[in-house]
Amino acid sequence: MADKAQLQEAIKTQGEVVRKLKSEKASKEQIDDEVAKLLQLKAQLGGDEGKHVFVLKTAKGTRDYNPKQMAIREKVFNIIVSCFKRHGAETIDTPVFELKETLTGKYGEDSKLIYDLKDQGGELLSLRYDLTVPFARYLALNKITNIKRYHIAKVYRRDNPAMTRGRYREFYQCDFDIAGQYDAMIPDAECLKIVYEILNELDLGDFRIKVNDRRILDGMFAVCGVPDEKFRTICSTVDKLDKTAWEDVRKEMVNEKGLSEDVADRIGAYVSMQGGQDLAERLLQDPKLSQNKQACAGLTDMKLLFSYLELFQVTDKVVFDLSLARGLDYYTGVIYEAVLSQTIPAPVCTPTEQNGADEAGVSVGSVAGGGRYDGLVGMFDPKGRKVPCVGVSIGIERIFSIMEQKAEASSVKVRTTETQVLVASAQKNLLEERLKLTSELWNAGIKAEVLYKKNPKLLSQLQHCEETGIPLVAILGEQELKDGVVKLRNVASREEVDVPRADLVDEIKTRTL
Amino acid sequence: MADKAQLQEAIKTQGEVVRKLKSEKASKEQIDDEVAKLLQLKAQLGGDEGKHVFVLKTAKGTRDYNPKQMAIREKVFNIIVSCFKRHGAETIDTPVFELKETLTGKYGEDSKLIYDLKDQGGELLSLRYDLTVPFARYLALNKITNIKRYHIAKVYRRDNPAMTRGRYREFYQCDFDIAGQYDAMIPDAECLKIVYEILNELDLGDFRIKVNDRRILDGMFAVCGVPDEKFRTICSTVDKLDKTAWEDVRKEMVNEKGLSEDVADRIGAYVSMQGGQDLAERLLQDPKLSQNKQACAGLTDMKLLFSYLELFQVTDKVVFDLSLARGLDYYTGVIYEAVLSQTIPAPVCTPTEQNGADEAGVSVGSVAGGGRYDGLVGMFDPKGRKVPCVGVSIGIERIFSIMEQKAEASSVKVRTTETQVLVASAQKNLLEERLKLTSELWNAGIKAEVLYKKNPKLLSQLQHCEETGIPLVAILGEQELKDGVVKLRNVASREEVDVPRADLVDEIKTRTL
Repeated sequence: MADKAQLQEAIKTQGEVVRKLKSEKASKEQIDDEVAKLLQLKAQLGGDEGKHVFVLKTAKGTRDYNPKQMAIREKVFNIIVSCFKRHGAETIDTPVFELKETLTGKYGEDSKLIYDLKDQGGELLSLRYDLTVPFARYLALNKITNIKRYHIAKVYRRDNPAMTRGRYREFYQCDFDIAGQYDAMIPDAECLKIVYEILNELDLGDFRIKVNDRRILDGMFAVCGVPDEKFRTICSTVDKLDKTAWEDVRKEMVNEKGLSEDVADRIGAYVSMQGGQDLAERLLQDPKLSQNKQACAGLTDMKLLFSYLELFQVTDKVVFDLSLARGLDYYTGVIYEAVLSQTIPAPVCTPTEQNGADEAGVSVGSVAGGGRYDGLVGMFDPKGRKVPCVGVSIGIERIFSIMEQKAEASSVKVRTTETQVLVASAQKNLLEERLKLTSELWNAGIKAEVLYKKNPKLLSQLQHCEETGIPLVAILGEQELKDGVVKLRNVASREEVDVPRADLVDEIKTRTL
Repeated sequence: MADKAQLQEAIKTQGEVVRKLKSEKASKEQIDDEVAKLLQLKAQLGGDEGKHVFVLKTAKGTRDYNPKQMAIREKVFNIIVSCFKRHGAETIDTPVFELKETLTGKYGEDSKLIYDLKDQGGELLSLRYDLTVPFARYLALNKITNIKRYHIAKVYRRDNPAMTRGRYREFYQCDFDIAGQYDAMIPDAECLKIVYEILNELDLGDFRIKVNDRRILDGMFAVCGVPDEKFRTICSTVDKLDKTAWEDVRKEMVNEKGLSEDVADRIGAYVSMQGGQDLAERLLQDPKLSQNKQACAGLTDMKLLFSYLELFQVTDKVVFDLSLARGLDYYTGVIYEAVLSQTIPAPVCTPTEQNGADEAGVSVGSVAGGGRYDGLVGMFDPKGRKVPCVGVSIGIERIFSIMEQKAEASSVKVRTTETQVLVASAQKNLLEERLKLTSELWNAGIKAEVLYKKNPKLLSQLQHCEETGIPLVAILGEQELKDGVVKLRNVASREEVDVPRADLVDEIKTRTL
């Protein structure tokens, strides 16, 4: 606990930071951040500073999911998990934090985005940054050499959030991976089939899956005359081609990365190429590429991959694209990325987030990506034993954003409960009878609600049904109790019919199939 | 990054710590902890210290879930979620971390168990300690005054782990809460009904749900002569009665907490009482308790609660027990706790964990608990507006432990996939035909697998089915392809039958209903 004088000093300093930012007309987000810190400091001081200053918010870059968002999330997960299960996958889970050193050296420059836990004595821990590194750690720890598994869980990155675009600091990843020594390209093809199936079923409009291979990229760089030590950095420049024009990418290569114009232009000729199996065949005849061992291995596998994709009937959406590079260091073979064709309408932006043209009518971009990483598990194994892996990660947060906007735009109301029937009464003093009937329905497996009031008005009971989409009302009255029946009302049509109490469960089941 | 000299110094110091512990014959767990720290330090030094020293483990007190454990977890969650949905609950989710101050002042002494995140600039954050405080924060932030929601998520406590007993530092909570201003005891009764249903369906053997009320406890302490300022501390002493004999509890009251023997004995007379509605009625006539306003309010509500429990047909398992106290400060009314009657057999203990008789043949104890907390949301609301809440938390980790042990003991194999059919071949060169058929099955919604080998042996294909529990094999051969059929084999019975390719999907569906 900081002492009081220190705190007051910190508050003074922080107050100046805020004033300075305001006078400089800094961005609202920046100012909000610093104001939040100021309020936190004041809250720590508490007590004699007068009122309790309390910041009521979630942590920066995170959000709560309300019931409506959860209903959409559940729907999306169901589609994805069904697909993973259809392909025979098991599932695992790992802790939200790992030993810090487990994550060290896996993410290159992005390591600065890792959340560390405070050293409270004991081990040094960090929140997981993705699910792939914990998966590799899991395989090495348990000496597993064969598994097809999916893992859906949240990961953490201290990145700049852009919440309206579905970019958060806490977000879901949805990974499917196949580990094991198998014949070439069969598991790789299944991963692409899975992406295809999921994007189809989610009904997000047209999409394209770009495919390339790290070995083809490396071979291409070699034959173009890129020095070995510049492969990775040129790779990340090439990676910008999905958002940036060739002219600008070329400039970066020449001016910043120090390639000669000739070399850049040779790269330019290759990375403009797109095609299918035919392109792989043509490049295998390319006088320069065909001389490079790496490139030939990649191209031969690409040909094979496309022959399997043909059998899986997914070649209409898959493109062999030499400009696809992908950032992560650990890929060793095939890489791929799925992009939606549609441009989603500009969401309602808060002023904080509306900082540039790229926020308005933004193209949704990548919604899935992955590739082969044959070396990662070996980094964890004490004897360096390798377990070849290939996998795909579904970019679920962007998909949530799109689905939420679709739900918002649609007239169909999203239900957040599955209640089949409300047990109601029009008369007073029937609480006990309502509770008794509700309990009977629960015991019979019917999803039933009852208002927690002694004597609710019938109107408010019906309104509850309208608001939450409950389709049926089971109405009890003195007469019904005497006759051994329940009045079953269809909320939409307002039709009512007396149902013998013994038949009620079956009647509700039939009507809410 | 610490510099090298500092690190070497730290390694030296830590080495001495380890040597000292070993010479003192400290517990294996303690030594392991310090050795792990030493290895971490050495790993940080890395490079020129020779080999890479890498600690391959999960963080202390955490575990991975393997596919078998996940299958059990999914089964348990399905039962629980079905129950919550049957009662018309929505679901929400909140971030894994909250602003540190959101958690401050909610957990009393246990606050020291909160995991803090490192200050990497920006807000001060902590991992959530339970789901109740984030729920209250959520209600206040979104100005929600009415909701029935469940939330299943992991929470974090830097407690002493006892993994074989299902006590972890990362563990699931499974909460159901009803927020809103309603007529007395109706939502409270529903929470108890839910505990009853879930424990019944999970089939964990006999159980008992103890019920009490904070107001009854407070009233009882008052009429026994406990000074106001000692209510909470005496409450936590009473809470030990489930594990400790009255004589020892009495000693603590008198010797440590400074009660007179008379006062302790008066408490002793009350806390030995157990019963149902009748006990509430009797205590309402008690010459002393009936004079206390708090106690009367609690007893009147208890009577009402039991009348509703009667309607819900759960009174066979619910006991009004005056010794139930529960630790948390925020309860304001009814409190309850469910305990299993069975004693689970001693699990296989690692030497580290086997430190005392309480590990062997341990009684499972509390598997659910909760109560009414009408003041918590008001602590977050800027205007202090109250939202009455009542809820229950299912102690899911203990339940997992029991279910895992049951599965271990049972001869029935836990399946970790849902695959209906393996597409196989007895002959060579049929990979393409296998892939094509598998793809057809996937497209028709059949859960199908195919081995990722060009020419797998039939035996290894059948073995894969035996090992993973796949019930059917669709076998392709030259003859079958010519005849337009597939040989469908039942793995268990070894029966084979030729099925026309056009009928295959229906046949598989029928056989794997």
